[in-house]
Amino acid sequence: MSVTLPLGFRAAGITAGLKASGKPDMALVINDGPTKHAAGVFTSNRVAAAPVHWSRQVLADGRVDAVVLNSGGANACTGPQGFQNTHATAERLAALLGVSAGDVAVCSTGLIGEQLPMDKILPGLELLVDNAGPDAGSAAADAIMTTDTVSKEASYIGFDPLGTGFTIGGMAKGAGMLAPGLATMLVVITTDAIVSPELLDAELREAVRLSFNRADSDGCMSTNDTVLLLASGASGSYPTGEEFGKGLQEVCKNLARQLIGDAEGAAHDIAIRTFNAASELDAETVSRAVARSNLFKTAIFGKDPNWGRVLSAVGTTDAVFDPDRLNVAINGVQICRNGGIGEDRSLVSLEDREVLVEIDLNAGEDEATIWTNDLTHDYVHENSAYSS
Amino acid sequence: MSVTLPLGFRAAGITAGLKASGKPDMALVINDGPTKHAAGVFTSNRVAAAPVHWSRQVLADGRVDAVVLNSGGANACTGPQGFQNTHATAERLAALLGVSAGDVAVCSTGLIGEQLPMDKILPGLELLVDNAGPDAGSAAADAIMTTDTVSKEASYIGFDPLGTGFTIGGMAKGAGMLAPGLATMLVVITTDAIVSPELLDAELREAVRLSFNRADSDGCMSTNDTVLLLASGASGSYPTGEEFGKGLQEVCKNLARQLIGDAEGAAHDIAIRTFNAASELDAETVSRAVARSNLFKTAIFGKDPNWGRVLSAVGTTDAVFDPDRLNVAINGVQICRNGGIGEDRSLVSLEDREVLVEIDLNAGEDEATIWTNDLTHDYVHENSAYSS
Repeated sequence: MSVTLPLGFRAAGITAGLKASGKPDMALVINDGPTKHAAGVFTSNRVAAAPVHWSRQVLADGRVDAVVLNSGGANACTGPQGFQNTHATAERLAALLGVSAGDVAVCSTGLIGEQLPMDKILPGLELLVDNAGPDAGSAAADAIMTTDTVSKEASYIGFDPLGTGFTIGGMAKGAGMLAPGLATMLVVITTDAIVSPELLDAELREAVRLSFNRADSDGCMSTNDTVLLLASGASGSYPTGEEFGKGLQEVCKNLARQLIGDAEGAAHDIAIRTFNAASELDAETVSRAVARSNLFKTAIFGKDPNWGRVLSAVGTTDAVFDPDRLNVAINGVQICRNGGIGEDRSLVSLEDREVLVEIDLNAGEDEATIWTNDLTHDYVHENSAYSS
Repeated sequence: MSVTLPLGFRAAGITAGLKASGKPDMALVINDGPTKHAAGVFTSNRVAAAPVHWSRQVLADGRVDAVVLNSGGANACTGPQGFQNTHATAERLAALLGVSAGDVAVCSTGLIGEQLPMDKILPGLELLVDNAGPDAGSAAADAIMTTDTVSKEASYIGFDPLGTGFTIGGMAKGAGMLAPGLATMLVVITTDAIVSPELLDAELREAVRLSFNRADSDGCMSTNDTVLLLASGASGSYPTGEEFGKGLQEVCKNLARQLIGDAEGAAHDIAIRTFNAASELDAETVSRAVARSNLFKTAIFGKDPNWGRVLSAVGTTDAVFDPDRLNVAINGVQICRNGGIGEDRSLVSLEDREVLVEIDLNAGEDEATIWTNDLTHDYVHENSAYSS
């Protein structure tokens, strides 16, 4: 159900012929209201795709009537022609739905540097509108997959202070940020709660900060990353900001974990938790430095609890710590104590897919966790063979 | 000849039994003067190995009489015992040579987090002193290898304004910064020129900045990286700072290229040149961002001229540029023009080991080149299997 679990939404997923594989490649999410409130978070990459430039403008007034998404082409680095194609897509969909093109967001994912085949996109829009319905959330989730092996959906059910229920539904695509030319992470989240655009924006930024921004497969940032949040208000439920934010964070974290769990070629899902840090930023910086160390990531692939590579990465950061007071545990075994040799490394098992690395900075009381993957032969294979 | 090409130096390389393989594992370089001027540059990793802490102190007064180096153990993250072992090594060698321990630098490379076997190190020192001679530079270069497949040496011959010749010799180990627990890059450079410690220091920092600091195999920084420069003054030659700096940069760049050329598991040596930048720092930042992109590096391994991954990496930087005015050429073919599609990508051949990526920022007149490698199956294999 995902994005169509909340009341007031229709969705569709169809095959327009953009992919050589013949798999579904276009998706649509329509907000039938009564409210059309929306918020969005986009890639911070300065080389942003045409649909990102377009959708940023659409989101500026906090209103979105519909979102159209395509896999099979990122429409990034495609120049003025690429932007015109995004514009034409929004105009055509707006005409079909009887809404303003300025309220139609567009998302694309696929190879960078190729023009979209508009002779397939435009007929695809008609098919999408014809197929749009309140039960097609999963079809939409299928249609945005690229190298994903499974579709990603999540939901949350909550209540406002009067006991009136609301729901949040979400779908995501992307093999972490691992995937190559088609690096993109696309997320659409819907809710039938009544929430102002301002609160949607604030809660979305906080939820993204604590979820997708802490999933770091390979440190690469896409030109197309987009997270959209649409609120229909159809439930008549007025949740508190706290309750809504809690539900939104749960959905975002759930989707983020699914992205990491499906990252290309990964053999281990790794949570890197840094605690006793002087600040949350310090904790995040340290966890991220370890998550981005190819040496650490290859060691985990090799089932080698190589804490020296953890410390090497920690040492490159400007976080507050004393090298002689660092502790590191892998899967519960404290193999590094006071910056030196701790328990026997042979006690650490890395047979399971889940790995927990805990770094004790002994410098404060804050913490943060980054989720990442190991670096494997399959990662190299998938990312070296992709576009050829 | 390498470090014993310049007059006034003796060296040795012997087998102390630190490596299971039985290969040479200890090296010595002695400066017999008349001058004992020296300069050093060390890792900026805050988790620094015991020998780095020791040698930093030794270099503080600009004098070094001898350098002892061992492979087979990094002596990093080894606590107070590790530092005592480094100290004992310097004391013992100083006694054997009749010099002050405070003038003996120590370098180690190998696995992090294991104590050195002092029962092998101390007898090894005697063997080193017994074997030290003016022709053993290459033996020393062999003894510092870890995962290196070949030893690295370089030399330069120059003249002072009066026509008196001087030489510079250097040896290096390290598979870029690619290598894992034994990540270390160790470099010892000797010269028989008469150069003050202050000028040695200034010229060494500039040469390192333009050579080793621009070789970036995998963005990982060792706990042990050390570059030492020793001047004996035995040639009687007083080169100008400019002439000496030129020679030193040539030797450093030569060694840096050899390190990249022998990086673990690499199939391509990649030079990433960014030009028309607003500043040299901008150019370096952009080249380094591309050099650290796993997606770019796997693409090159797959012989895929994926310029979209180059632009994605460029877009993550804060350098001055307009995304619509970026040009990218790979091996001379301008496949990205004005931020969009340029010449046909099929015109690019990536069959050769050498790859040149040229990024035109169209924002100024500065440039910088970073040397890196591709990311290959062999990299994953060597770094996942190493310590197990």
